[in-house]
Amino acid sequence: MSLKDQQGAQTVLSPGSTIGILGGGQLGRMLALAGARLGLKTHIYTPEASCPAALAATELTVGEFDDVDRVLDFAKSCDAVTYEFENVPALSAKAATSGAPLRPNADALNVSQDRLVEKTFLKEKLGLEVAGFAAVNSLDDLRGAVKELGLPCVLKTRRFGYDGKGQVIIKSEGDIEGAWDRLSPAECILEAFVSFEREVSIVAARGVDGQIAAYPLTENVHKNHILYQSTAPASQDDGSAAKMAGQILETLDYVGVMGVEFFQMATGDLIVNEIAPRVHNSGHWTQDAGCTDQFEQHMRAVAGWPLGQAIPQHGVVMTNLIGDEAKAWKTLAQEAGVFIHLYGKSECRTGRKMGHVNRIVKS
Amino acid sequence: MSLKDQQGAQTVLSPGSTIGILGGGQLGRMLALAGARLGLKTHIYTPEASCPAALAATELTVGEFDDVDRVLDFAKSCDAVTYEFENVPALSAKAATSGAPLRPNADALNVSQDRLVEKTFLKEKLGLEVAGFAAVNSLDDLRGAVKELGLPCVLKTRRFGYDGKGQVIIKSEGDIEGAWDRLSPAECILEAFVSFEREVSIVAARGVDGQIAAYPLTENVHKNHILYQSTAPASQDDGSAAKMAGQILETLDYVGVMGVEFFQMATGDLIVNEIAPRVHNSGHWTQDAGCTDQFEQHMRAVAGWPLGQAIPQHGVVMTNLIGDEAKAWKTLAQEAGVFIHLYGKSECRTGRKMGHVNRIVKS
Repeated sequence: MSLKDQQGAQTVLSPGSTIGILGGGQLGRMLALAGARLGLKTHIYTPEASCPAALAATELTVGEFDDVDRVLDFAKSCDAVTYEFENVPALSAKAATSGAPLRPNADALNVSQDRLVEKTFLKEKLGLEVAGFAAVNSLDDLRGAVKELGLPCVLKTRRFGYDGKGQVIIKSEGDIEGAWDRLSPAECILEAFVSFEREVSIVAARGVDGQIAAYPLTENVHKNHILYQSTAPASQDDGSAAKMAGQILETLDYVGVMGVEFFQMATGDLIVNEIAPRVHNSGHWTQDAGCTDQFEQHMRAVAGWPLGQAIPQHGVVMTNLIGDEAKAWKTLAQEAGVFIHLYGKSECRTGRKMGHVNRIVKS
Repeated sequence: MSLKDQQGAQTVLSPGSTIGILGGGQLGRMLALAGARLGLKTHIYTPEASCPAALAATELTVGEFDDVDRVLDFAKSCDAVTYEFENVPALSAKAATSGAPLRPNADALNVSQDRLVEKTFLKEKLGLEVAGFAAVNSLDDLRGAVKELGLPCVLKTRRFGYDGKGQVIIKSEGDIEGAWDRLSPAECILEAFVSFEREVSIVAARGVDGQIAAYPLTENVHKNHILYQSTAPASQDDGSAAKMAGQILETLDYVGVMGVEFFQMATGDLIVNEIAPRVHNSGHWTQDAGCTDQFEQHMRAVAGWPLGQAIPQHGVVMTNLIGDEAKAWKTLAQEAGVFIHLYGKSECRTGRKMGHVNRIVKS
């Protein structure tokens, strides 16, 4: 469905309009702050009243994500609705669409919230390279899939996985049963192990008018399955990641910012790992790079505005502040050329993203 | 009074602390947004519930600025209090100080809210060059002062003037009576006319620990007495403006960001025009210059944090959007390298500052 068809919704929203955001985490918070710069109001829908986005947004509705009626009421109070996480239930996405234009659309959610649908879409529909995969709904399926894809391999739940949650590495045949016990009865996918050289990602946006703007390729380093550091622009960018992102955005008739993660092989080839239909942690460096940042870019797209410039003035290294690392704020504040971003989370838990810093790289 | 003496207040405020802001205009709004980036909460005190800062801040108290009890209650709910305009009544400033550390302190308000006190402070206490001036409390005073300072000259109210309001140019002796009729019975000051070459300003900050950071000299162009454009860094900066700003900050035991406006003569000499004890319109360019911007800088200072870097990565031209000019937001959004800042004001009046844009200058 083309967005212009949605209830004759106004394509370009003026300053003063309200953008609804499903989700109240740090991404929602930074979207709200970016919207405020443009004179756009934000209305956050979240199950948790004291979430990071609550205090930065104009309005707040506290409700469960599967409360279809409440989501519909929320959407009706907004001029457009977006989301800051991909696990919006399909029925709620449908309800939101009935109340206001949903940008990105429900297709983007469908594809990205299920690893099997996502991989099938990328491989079959777009012809992009992905890791070998097979659907797994039983222990027998798993045994067969391991034979097919080889060892080592990774069993993952099809839905709701993030930061390494919902996945188990299978190194030998002896691991098979334990892996299945851990993740069943969830529907799963088995993925072949990819011996990559490095992890890279690209953040790209598409406007209501089809205009596409991709930020430069970013190199990512993870620690304990959580993004630790992103460096942009990454070395050796041949433009193929941006091209693939453009293909994905166009095929989904996507409006907004998307993150696409890749494994890069020693040959330089890129294998798509996953797509995120939202602003992305590996795009936080754009906030202090002298270009339109990904949060403003997303708000521009959702509001139907022209996209901003995605070409940075200088390189940036983004480092996440996980758990106690955020306690170093005072030392970090003393460092020249460091931009501090804290999410206002009162409780500091292990593995919890508390903030990030952007360091300018002198050229 | 040294700030460290104020009720043993904690000098360094952790993320999660609340900074109170007296005033709810666009400066308060941008301070609130900058504070949110650092994980600082903000509490706005304003007489107008639907002000630009209201929606960007964490909390809002609606009250009159001269309601001393209400200001005291407000200050008690904050970890430190600052202000976004210089006309905070002396008794309210005193009340705020009783509730929380007031940064900048009340001395800065006393000096800057009265042109006569300000000029006397700059000239007698600091030995800085200012335009010739004389106190005027009667028509006779005015006649005498015109004789002393010569024609043309400018009659100004000592208090509450801004953007050309509260001032009359006297070109000939025949203008004297009319000028007095327009501004009396307010206490006035007569200022000699300065034939300047250009207008420049400097924005500088001082931390709780006495650390000073000055942004580069900025060249300003006014239209109809309202700032139209600021270009930074200004050409031909010999460092004397930063030196003078440092002198003012130290003498006032100032904490926070201050704007100092100068007239520059053909000889290059700088005459101090006025000081503003707050973030300053001519410092808005710092938001998109690749350094700590003046709003974050002010919040850092008020929270007792180390100051950030005030050295831009590239030049910036800031242009105010006055009245209807803000209606060009869509065209501006199409322009590459333009950063749009809108203040969320619903009513667009002639001469009203609705937003500004920063344009990156390629080096």
